Amino acid sequence: MKTVTGFASATIGNVACGFDVLGFAITEPGDEVILTQREKRTDLLPVSITSITGDGGALPRDPKKNTSSFVVLKFLEYIRTNKGIDFEGHIELQLKKNLPLSSGMGSSAASAAAALVAANELMGNPCSKMELVHFAIEGERVACGSAHADNAAPAMLGNFVLIRSYNPIDLITIPPPDNLFCTLAHPHIELRTAYARSVLPRTISLKTATEQWGNVGALISGLLTSDYELIGRSLVDAIAEPKRAPLIPGFYSVKNAALEAGALGCSIAGSGPSIFAFSSSYEAACEVGEAMKQAFSNIREKLQSDIWVSPVCKEGAKII
Amino acid sequence: MKTVTGFASATIGNVACGFDVLGFAITEPGDEVILTQREKRTDLLPVSITSITGDGGALPRDPKKNTSSFVVLKFLEYIRTNKGIDFEGHIELQLKKNLPLSSGMGSSAASAAAALVAANELMGNPCSKMELVHFAIEGERVACGSAHADNAAPAMLGNFVLIRSYNPIDLITIPPPDNLFCTLAHPHIELRTAYARSVLPRTISLKTATEQWGNVGALISGLLTSDYELIGRSLVDAIAEPKRAPLIPGFYSVKNAALEAGALGCSIAGSGPSIFAFSSSYEAACEVGEAMKQAFSNIREKLQSDIWVSPVCKEGAKII
Repeated sequence: MKTVTGFASATIGNVACGFDVLGFAITEPGDEVILTQREKRTDLLPVSITSITGDGGALPRDPKKNTSSFVVLKFLEYIRTNKGIDFEGHIELQLKKNLPLSSGMGSSAASAAAALVAANELMGNPCSKMELVHFAIEGERVACGSAHADNAAPAMLGNFVLIRSYNPIDLITIPPPDNLFCTLAHPHIELRTAYARSVLPRTISLKTATEQWGNVGALISGLLTSDYELIGRSLVDAIAEPKRAPLIPGFYSVKNAALEAGALGCSIAGSGPSIFAFSSSYEAACEVGEAMKQAFSNIREKLQSDIWVSPVCKEGAKII
Repeated sequence: MKTVTGFASATIGNVACGFDVLGFAITEPGDEVILTQREKRTDLLPVSITSITGDGGALPRDPKKNTSSFVVLKFLEYIRTNKGIDFEGHIELQLKKNLPLSSGMGSSAASAAAALVAANELMGNPCSKMELVHFAIEGERVACGSAHADNAAPAMLGNFVLIRSYNPIDLITIPPPDNLFCTLAHPHIELRTAYARSVLPRTISLKTATEQWGNVGALISGLLTSDYELIGRSLVDAIAEPKRAPLIPGFYSVKNAALEAGALGCSIAGSGPSIFAFSSSYEAACEVGEAMKQAFSNIREKLQSDIWVSPVCKEGAKII
């Protein structure tokens, strides 16, 4: 019997202007996946789920439908075909969900990435993280109907990850500036990714698109040159934010509160409802967090929220 | 009597994925503007055009309609209002056009930038280049009906320039990698910017836009990290190139020839008809140039072309 625990943290996709092409990892919170190798059981798939905690019973227990087990099944298929590793045993999977579901915090991507590094370790690390990330991206299709990579890639690789192309997958890792801190505010409501995608337009004006890619280029430049003011100015989203803001009670109040408290910029985390802000010091990011929490509680709906302050995680998914 | 000569070089806008937000300067060829300060003449505007060479008589001689004199008039207005400099004399302007018109080489921007640095020098340099660039951008509206900045900004500032925002103008200078060389092929046909803009779609799909901004981000990352392969992979234009390619006889033949000769990437220079390619050495860029010239001459129209091989100019407009 061999037991391995994988961990992957929350990630924030889109990052304002970078719809579907940019995401980054924070250091906490994160999901844990514990894999235990057992004797082969011919009556079962090679992976079974023995426990899930922290999901309130919401996630599927069927190994083909749960993201964390689905990606392990795909990984086992891959190493059999491509690495000549024919796993003869059985894997029991325990998932400790610390990330809220449908939160915009990359919950499904964290479970997938944690499961994959654990499975890879169990099999003697036949795959690089860059190979594993493909299964994590496939897991997103199971979790929310769209194989977007802007959570899965940073959950696996850490840092900021830019997705230059989906076909073929071309990922560019961008290390964060030293003093960039993220404040993440998670209001106690759920917003399903599939629904938050359905409100987006199918077409946009060339003018708006041009503004957006000016900001994407500027944000990448700001990150690579540690230009905090430029990072702040580039956190503009003319496309998804205006459509998704009405789905998040108090979005503009919270954003304004973050900016007034000194944040460099602020936008929706992934498809929401969580909201992230960047600051150029830990202390500033904490003050921004207090302002965001207060703003959520001041709206008509008096939303409770959790706040996390974190640097950008450089490590990605790991064995703990 | 005081005479000053300004010089600004050719620039390449769009740079594949960066429609309207990215451009860069090369070191040659360039336009020269010679300004001579004379006694005030009350019967004339403060600027008159005494000669233009190299334009085949195509450019307007009216100081309000010619880009190079128009921007000097705007500059004089600005320094009177904002710097308290009330110029009492008269400026005679000679324009030596070395850049072909309607070539996609930033011909109007070069004339404007050269005129502005010369005028600024004549007035004792009251303005920074970042101030001057605004007049150069306004000059584009006179020249081609659209105040795009992706030629004017690099003509003035050198390097790559990313335009994060047009309102307000927010320009980010990006120094080029040391070994990046540009091959520019100018076929002997004209393509008016206004017409080349008219073939573009007003709206684009969100999917295509997303692909484009993935490439913009990746190109900026490639430039800032000297990742030549990434620069090459990012030189993809899903929006303007497919629409404008049919306006340039032999475009795809020339592009393929450049890539087969080893170019990192290749696309339309500005709105065409010139075509640029990047290479990671001077020798490679020269070979690419020969292949491009040959390809133009091999098409049915047997186009003659001029070829320039140049590093990215870091200097921008200057006094010579």
